Amino acid sequence: SLIFVIFICIAVPVHANVSDPLPSWNAGASKASIMDFVNRVTAEDGPYFVPPEQRIATFDNDGTLWSEQPMYFQVIFALDRVKTMASDHPEWVEKSPAVKAAMAGDVKSVLAMGKKGLVEIIAASHAGMTESEFSQIVTDWVDSSRHPRFDRKYTELVYQPMLELLDYLRANGFKTYITSGGGISFMRPWSESVYGIPPEQVIGSSIKHQFEMRDGKPVLVRLPEINFIDDKEGKPVGINSHIGRRPIMSVGNSDGDHQMLQWATGGSGARFAMLIRHTDEEREWAYDRESHIGKLDKAWDDAVDKGWTVVDMKMDWKVVYPFQRAD
Amino acid sequence: SLIFVIFICIAVPVHANVSDPLPSWNAGASKASIMDFVNRVTAEDGPYFVPPEQRIATFDNDGTLWSEQPMYFQVIFALDRVKTMASDHPEWVEKSPAVKAAMAGDVKSVLAMGKKGLVEIIAASHAGMTESEFSQIVTDWVDSSRHPRFDRKYTELVYQPMLELLDYLRANGFKTYITSGGGISFMRPWSESVYGIPPEQVIGSSIKHQFEMRDGKPVLVRLPEINFIDDKEGKPVGINSHIGRRPIMSVGNSDGDHQMLQWATGGSGARFAMLIRHTDEEREWAYDRESHIGKLDKAWDDAVDKGWTVVDMKMDWKVVYPFQRAD
Repeated sequence: SLIFVIFICIAVPVHANVSDPLPSWNAGASKASIMDFVNRVTAEDGPYFVPPEQRIATFDNDGTLWSEQPMYFQVIFALDRVKTMASDHPEWVEKSPAVKAAMAGDVKSVLAMGKKGLVEIIAASHAGMTESEFSQIVTDWVDSSRHPRFDRKYTELVYQPMLELLDYLRANGFKTYITSGGGISFMRPWSESVYGIPPEQVIGSSIKHQFEMRDGKPVLVRLPEINFIDDKEGKPVGINSHIGRRPIMSVGNSDGDHQMLQWATGGSGARFAMLIRHTDEEREWAYDRESHIGKLDKAWDDAVDKGWTVVDMKMDWKVVYPFQRAD
Repeated sequence: SLIFVIFICIAVPVHANVSDPLPSWNAGASKASIMDFVNRVTAEDGPYFVPPEQRIATFDNDGTLWSEQPMYFQVIFALDRVKTMASDHPEWVEKSPAVKAAMAGDVKSVLAMGKKGLVEIIAASHAGMTESEFSQIVTDWVDSSRHPRFDRKYTELVYQPMLELLDYLRANGFKTYITSGGGISFMRPWSESVYGIPPEQVIGSSIKHQFEMRDGKPVLVRLPEINFIDDKEGKPVGINSHIGRRPIMSVGNSDGDHQMLQWATGGSGARFAMLIRHTDEEREWAYDRESHIGKLDKAWDDAVDKGWTVVDMKMDWKVVYPFQRAD
């Protein structure tokens, strides 16, 4: 016979001032629509109740949970890596127009090469090491790099209102996922400490991996070959692959998130889709239909048409970054 | 001010006979090694403590959680589908040697074609519909088909001792995953009700999917193209893709699980690897080194060499299937 413990729980009704779960959100339609949705799907006796295991919420990362200007932070990481590594690999500079442009500091040309240029940079900067070595490289970079405009770590450029939203959802039984066009292995080393999202709930683009035994120790080697692009039509595919259930809530900020929002809202029962509009060039940046990064055009029209929530950063958010809080 | 509820919890120590968490396991080295491992990683003051978020356990499915004879149940499903569908698609029979053999009932030839034959059958039986249509097809087949030897639903041919092990691990804070060479979309429709493993914790082989809008509704179409083979070297790759952490415990039954067990035991701290040996031809089947299905050869040698737990079904298990229980 063993000693164990029984918890006797007594429900005690209490009147109290419940603190606002979303203190960095101004009162208004966006905040109200979020709280209304959460209240509806968690009301056990209501017509919109969703059991906890189906409360899946997926969030784009770049431009939705953290900033993406003057370019995707992972691109800045990649350019830093290319510069660091190129002295060991002079052949890269000749072989790859994108690496050559990056070495010359000509970021504009790299971006103008589109996906092909991006892939060349990623192959040169993200492959050839083991998965755990890459994880350490990312951690070191995140710890030592500073954003040029704010002189802050990149992981400080996350949106305080979105951190509150993630917490609020989890407190209401939601499972929160990242579904980013960015690299899955680039986000996982810091997603748990920064967003409270564990590695198994991070979905993103990936390169291929190969299992090998090296000196009797198993390793996963990162190969210079694209495995999956988790963007646009890829987002619902990545969600299906990793989760196997359709989210009931999805949040993005650009046309790259359009299909994910269509997918999330295409099921039955209560559904919630939200777009973050970058309208605040003072505290963050302002860009939409004409932007090379985070272009928001068709998804915005569709959001207006369908009545999805469209957040206006300038109007809806009391603060943007955690370091801007008054406390 | 709102009304909410505070739960007051009082810890009450109670003396009681704690029931055996693994009642279908005979006392012996296998059972002792499992319980010893779980006790060690959950002992907060001990040297082997593992925080709950890192208690990841991965299980092969075919031959580890349910039977795989006279052939993988998914192959039986595929052959049933090919027969059902072939009248609509006479061109398949001419185009594919595997489909032709399957139609003639010549399963031996299909199996002899190896992976290529399997792929032809899977392409003909698993693609061309949406993901939710396929899920319904699987559910209907599982509900209506019977295993030829036992005249039971295939989902009744799961191992009672393994169901107890999954429960026991989850009660001790483990997250349990399936990591199968079988199809991820074939297992997800029933993994939660049969194993208590939700779809987001199922990893397996997959074909490619494509997002489309059909009559204004989003769908994921299953394409006749292999996306990922979650077997042998693929298993650690699939684990890394889906979980992003290394399991501390892994269980398999064949050489297809060897690399997964190497991967799980290759990390630091307490590690547990286990192989199920099929030694019971009376209650289940007996096969190992020479078997076409579930061949256990190199992984067995390595298990003996490394001191991994090797379960002898006949000796270690009081019952094999739930329907064989005395109660």
